[in-house]
Amino acid sequence: MIGATAAYGVCLALRADASDEALERAFATLMATRPTAINLKWALEEMVAAVRNRPRDERVAAAYRRAAEICDEDVAINRAIGGHGAALIAAIAAKKPPAQPVQVLTHCNAGWLATVDFGTALAPIYVAHDRGVPLHVWVDETRPRNQGAALTAWELGQHGVPHTVIPDNTGGHLMQHGMVDMVIVGTDRVTADGDVCNKIGTYLKALAAKDNGVPFYVGLPSPTIDFSVSDGLTEIPIEQRSADEVATVTGRTADGSVATVRIVPDGSAVANYGFDVTPARLVTGLVTERGIIAPNREALAGAFAERAAAAISGIGKP
Amino acid sequence: MIGATAAYGVCLALRADASDEALERAFATLMATRPTAINLKWALEEMVAAVRNRPRDERVAAAYRRAAEICDEDVAINRAIGGHGAALIAAIAAKKPPAQPVQVLTHCNAGWLATVDFGTALAPIYVAHDRGVPLHVWVDETRPRNQGAALTAWELGQHGVPHTVIPDNTGGHLMQHGMVDMVIVGTDRVTADGDVCNKIGTYLKALAAKDNGVPFYVGLPSPTIDFSVSDGLTEIPIEQRSADEVATVTGRTADGSVATVRIVPDGSAVANYGFDVTPARLVTGLVTERGIIAPNREALAGAFAERAAAAISGIGKP
Repeated sequence: MIGATAAYGVCLALRADASDEALERAFATLMATRPTAINLKWALEEMVAAVRNRPRDERVAAAYRRAAEICDEDVAINRAIGGHGAALIAAIAAKKPPAQPVQVLTHCNAGWLATVDFGTALAPIYVAHDRGVPLHVWVDETRPRNQGAALTAWELGQHGVPHTVIPDNTGGHLMQHGMVDMVIVGTDRVTADGDVCNKIGTYLKALAAKDNGVPFYVGLPSPTIDFSVSDGLTEIPIEQRSADEVATVTGRTADGSVATVRIVPDGSAVANYGFDVTPARLVTGLVTERGIIAPNREALAGAFAERAAAAISGIGKP
Repeated sequence: MIGATAAYGVCLALRADASDEALERAFATLMATRPTAINLKWALEEMVAAVRNRPRDERVAAAYRRAAEICDEDVAINRAIGGHGAALIAAIAAKKPPAQPVQVLTHCNAGWLATVDFGTALAPIYVAHDRGVPLHVWVDETRPRNQGAALTAWELGQHGVPHTVIPDNTGGHLMQHGMVDMVIVGTDRVTADGDVCNKIGTYLKALAAKDNGVPFYVGLPSPTIDFSVSDGLTEIPIEQRSADEVATVTGRTADGSVATVRIVPDGSAVANYGFDVTPARLVTGLVTERGIIAPNREALAGAFAERAAAAISGIGKP
């Protein structure tokens, strides 16, 4: 997860300057990189707690120890998510004719390029593939930054997983024609009521899945659950990003160099919202390190009682 | 509409060779350019009927006469669509606080670049704008060919209509937050039961509109209605197009030249379905030259009785 990366960011900052001020600055700077990502906040709070009450000359070593623990926890969590999710994929495979691949659709990138080890949404795919379950992944291009086309497709290719890149507009059509058996995506934040904040466009795929009876799963490590927030639509601020991400596209030219081209007329305004919220009613299940959890308060608080309690007592509050 | 363009294509073909064989070849060649577009078929059949029983030396002149008529009919139809659709926009404006623009979302390009005169889906926008109704258009980029970003945005800009280009992933989020008052799109073919075949991704926007109580309109000239087809999902074949349309993006570089860049890894497969079908249950109304028609067989056959009857008698059959 992004939290593990940020933990090492704190280590680097403390190597340069181990003062309280530098620690606060590192927290604020790293937090601002992705305000939607709740596990980033969790990891940064863990890092601050690990070094705050120590003398300055012990802080760097303490930070590296805690960062390594966070990273190890991350690996263990993602492996568990992979195991639970792979069982879902295998169950679908068991109902299909032999050798017919399970058709999985994913949006954006929640694999090992974005996380540590196997990733979250892609971990079930890797584990199922490694166990010999036949599968094929429809990879949403994921405009405007093309993380699907650029990262997910490359990752899956490196791992030998059959896949096809599609424009984000395509998933609904595929689902209408029985060409998708399940959807699995990652998330930046899940509310106590099971609303899912993820890359912009996720909500549209969830609607299509619901309309066509396709199960819609979300892979997530439990630090992604924010028990201090209930209603994703009104309580999660959605970042707006640079217009250039939409107006220009960067890729490789025929001669192998990298170039950026503009696709929007010069006088036209551009809007670029980074995320959207998929209401819990559209989510089939949350694939966590503790198994598949229903997207509602009771189930989430039951499965992660210690985190829910911490939020209620105010420890996890913003 | 695309039919008017094709009519002139027949004229050009007959100028080169006015034989029956050349006429048949022109029909087949032009028809293959867009098999989904039913008004293309209608226009080509009209052209064949206008020249078939004439001596060869009269065919070119007859073809140009019929093409001009089709073009004039097209202009009249689009103006009527514009008037009926503009009334819908004005009605929404009347319910909003003064000077607050009506927020319209559109997908792909159904304006004057794709048609004759004002276009179909965009005609209501142009007419409402010209009448002084305050409005703003959210322009779906429309991957993979970027017709929204490239054509619709440019058209609207030329006409002075306020607009913002958005990734196709964005519309659902905007609708969830009350930022869209209506959706209007064009169509390649509408079935006798009101299913709407249009650019891939239209269905996803229709789902979001339904989920958020946003009216979803389709602007169409009546030759787009195919009374020989009932169920759009099973009876309309969906073209697959070149993988290169998805894998590469063409645009302007910083120095003003045009370049093409590749955004998908070399080893990854790509799928490119051109259209999808929005079921009639998701459509609020069909904006035609004869007013707003409900998307069902009874209303359509009532409003266009002569076309429905022709289909039943087999004249309009494939």
